[in-house]
Amino acid sequence: MASMAALFIKTPYPSHTHSITKFPNTHFAPTFRVSVSVPSGRIKRRLRVSSGLIEPDGGKLVELLVDEPLKDLKKREALSLPRIKLSSIDLQWVHVLSEGWASPLRGFMRESEFLQTLHFNTLRLQNGSAVNMSVPILLAIDDSQKHLIAESTKVALFDSNNNPVAILKDIEIYKHPKEERIARTWGTTASGLPYVEEAIANAGNWLIGGDLEVLEPIKYHDGLDRFRLSPTELREEFTRRNADAVFAFQLRNPVHNGHALLMTDTRRRLLDMGYKNPILLLHPLGGYTKADDVPLSWRMKQHEKVLEDGVLDPETTVVSIFPSPMHYAGPTEVQWHAKARINAGANFYIVGRDPAGMGHPSEKRDLYDADHGKKVLSMAPGLERLNILPFKVAAYDKTQGKMAFFDASRPQDFVFISGTKMRMLAKNKESPPDGFMCPGGWKVLVEYYDSLVPTTNDKVPVAVPA
Amino acid sequence: MASMAALFIKTPYPSHTHSITKFPNTHFAPTFRVSVSVPSGRIKRRLRVSSGLIEPDGGKLVELLVDEPLKDLKKREALSLPRIKLSSIDLQWVHVLSEGWASPLRGFMRESEFLQTLHFNTLRLQNGSAVNMSVPILLAIDDSQKHLIAESTKVALFDSNNNPVAILKDIEIYKHPKEERIARTWGTTASGLPYVEEAIANAGNWLIGGDLEVLEPIKYHDGLDRFRLSPTELREEFTRRNADAVFAFQLRNPVHNGHALLMTDTRRRLLDMGYKNPILLLHPLGGYTKADDVPLSWRMKQHEKVLEDGVLDPETTVVSIFPSPMHYAGPTEVQWHAKARINAGANFYIVGRDPAGMGHPSEKRDLYDADHGKKVLSMAPGLERLNILPFKVAAYDKTQGKMAFFDASRPQDFVFISGTKMRMLAKNKESPPDGFMCPGGWKVLVEYYDSLVPTTNDKVPVAVPA
Repeated sequence: MASMAALFIKTPYPSHTHSITKFPNTHFAPTFRVSVSVPSGRIKRRLRVSSGLIEPDGGKLVELLVDEPLKDLKKREALSLPRIKLSSIDLQWVHVLSEGWASPLRGFMRESEFLQTLHFNTLRLQNGSAVNMSVPILLAIDDSQKHLIAESTKVALFDSNNNPVAILKDIEIYKHPKEERIARTWGTTASGLPYVEEAIANAGNWLIGGDLEVLEPIKYHDGLDRFRLSPTELREEFTRRNADAVFAFQLRNPVHNGHALLMTDTRRRLLDMGYKNPILLLHPLGGYTKADDVPLSWRMKQHEKVLEDGVLDPETTVVSIFPSPMHYAGPTEVQWHAKARINAGANFYIVGRDPAGMGHPSEKRDLYDADHGKKVLSMAPGLERLNILPFKVAAYDKTQGKMAFFDASRPQDFVFISGTKMRMLAKNKESPPDGFMCPGGWKVLVEYYDSLVPTTNDKVPVAVPA
Repeated sequence: MASMAALFIKTPYPSHTHSITKFPNTHFAPTFRVSVSVPSGRIKRRLRVSSGLIEPDGGKLVELLVDEPLKDLKKREALSLPRIKLSSIDLQWVHVLSEGWASPLRGFMRESEFLQTLHFNTLRLQNGSAVNMSVPILLAIDDSQKHLIAESTKVALFDSNNNPVAILKDIEIYKHPKEERIARTWGTTASGLPYVEEAIANAGNWLIGGDLEVLEPIKYHDGLDRFRLSPTELREEFTRRNADAVFAFQLRNPVHNGHALLMTDTRRRLLDMGYKNPILLLHPLGGYTKADDVPLSWRMKQHEKVLEDGVLDPETTVVSIFPSPMHYAGPTEVQWHAKARINAGANFYIVGRDPAGMGHPSEKRDLYDADHGKKVLSMAPGLERLNILPFKVAAYDKTQGKMAFFDASRPQDFVFISGTKMRMLAKNKESPPDGFMCPGGWKVLVEYYDSLVPTTNDKVPVAVPA
């Protein structure tokens, strides 16, 4: 995976973007936004361009790592405090919070933050403005843990190996209204929601909120930590590359050529709009996913091949892992996916059909209306600064022998390759139509399904393209 | 009920509030808000006072009645359009919309309004600001009605007597995601939610939104129409009374002396704050309520007695009926109750324990945390201009022989009279402790339970104090 690592260790700095002063006609301003008229091909429109990266929510990236000189002191303190053992998903949230993806949140939510998230998908700041926050970030404890904490104002969070991870201070303990949380987050309480079954159903009846002091950067030691760039590191990388636009693509599935077409087309559109160096943040989700999704390690192998095969341009692409767990909460969750990328410096966000959606767990239909995600995202309070780029639908065009944007005037020429079909093909080691996915990427998928033990053959997980 | 009618037909205009120029020390400004320091007893605080009524949401009250000269034309047009028959709840919503309680909404919600309500409890205006809107106001149609409408851009709404009520124009038809609507509005999908069973479960699978043109003011001919003042009429009444503060009390239950204590205490607090003429809007909900609530006509009789008995001061009280149906959606609905009263001119809103709440329909607990309503209300976007006045808990103080604010230092002196207990007493024609409710009001309650046919005695509906 060296080639991918190179994507962000290398700092391509083409001379033609070296200095903004060389391009007086671009009207780019280094630190503030200006309204300009940019003639470009057929398009002549007023738009806002800026060479400075978009500000994080709340104006400042909130990182929660303890300063180096205080580390030993804080570790000793942690050992003296009441202990809470973190699940793997809890730890992923500590990771998310520690690096500022959820800025300006400073820790697990207290009740007022939880209620605002649940009812308004926003948090109000001191100055009266609102930032988007759609997914509750919560730490549940049970009666015995609550009893143990007693009157303490701080607790220590420990990982599964009994290592201290963080201190949670100025804590507030409040009731965990599971049914209401689930109903308002997912719009259903049907049993079988993956995150609910994994992280809520058996969780404690209390929630504990507070400010986090994280002792060490969270690492997973799975060979992929080097791909887990924090928002600060991503911002540094975008700045090094002299990006004047960053467009984020959230995914949790293998990249096929329909995705690639979309990403390259987006870059073309941004260039048309007057941006000189739009950078793609290809940002696979790395936290908890449901059992039938392709695991992160295989997805990363697949993404690597896609870049090696030249489907995407390494010069203008940053591949990194987004550490959040997946809720599969559709229109609610897509806001979180977008908001977190603002904090990482993205000012454009690509949104497709049914983002963060899945099949209804107990009815034969999609859980969400496929168009609600992008509609809700485009109206979401606190995301006004983000430019939403709705997906065009790509399908396999038989006349061209490649993935292309669907043309409603000649539907007979297009084949939609469903997740089920892709899975069946990969599982049976058959090839998809030429041009559906680059051969190297397809090979990884076949290997993945091959690696699944034969006894599970009857119910091989379904890999669904985003 | 003549005495109550008098409450808003009379225009008490005491000379001491006749002219603001007589009171140079009050710092009241007739049309704009000023920050002043008001020393008053123990309280010395900065506050905002104004003698102008609070602006409606969106700056202008949106009334949807057809202008007189166009009425005949519009009625004839209605007869030529595809027809939708309204349920009684649908008609109540037409009433609500027609008078501007939901300003700036101009009709039943289109999908973008529905989605914003569902996810954010707000609607964004053209100027980028947000108004609160927490409860979806929707009109459902079924497949055959959708088929009938076909390509028409307008439909006519008819009441149960086949009289044309309104035209809905520039219509948009979209899917009715019942499960998601219920989950996100109530925070549960448990069966047995009264509004759901009455108005959603058997409703059509499509929603139709558009702009309303209402042909005539909505009337119910139940002897109570004269109490149904529109926001415009209420604003006129408050202005006639020279109100410099209007505090609204939403209720759907009989008024006991705990409520009365709270309302008179609120007035005292407002006077302490420097207001000269705070007017109480006692505002019983008049639309759909569940079967075990006391019916509107009996409640109005009871409220009348409370005023006759001098428990509340008619000079400073306006009794009127709020035409909205009841959702019993707790923290979500209380925002609607408050927002609608802004449109009617109230700038203070009294909120109690578990507003708009009820028992969980299938579990032995309250559906909502009793404190969430006031917390959510105090944080709700779009309600920043409204002053929220949280309830103090009143209970029967045995040492004083009357309802009083609960004193946690001597809990043994207080008796909480539950809804069940009140119901049992009234049903058995027993008297509550002296001072729980004025005798005239209590008599009405006893008469109501007496009027219920004996065969239902085993399951007499429970009247729960707010």
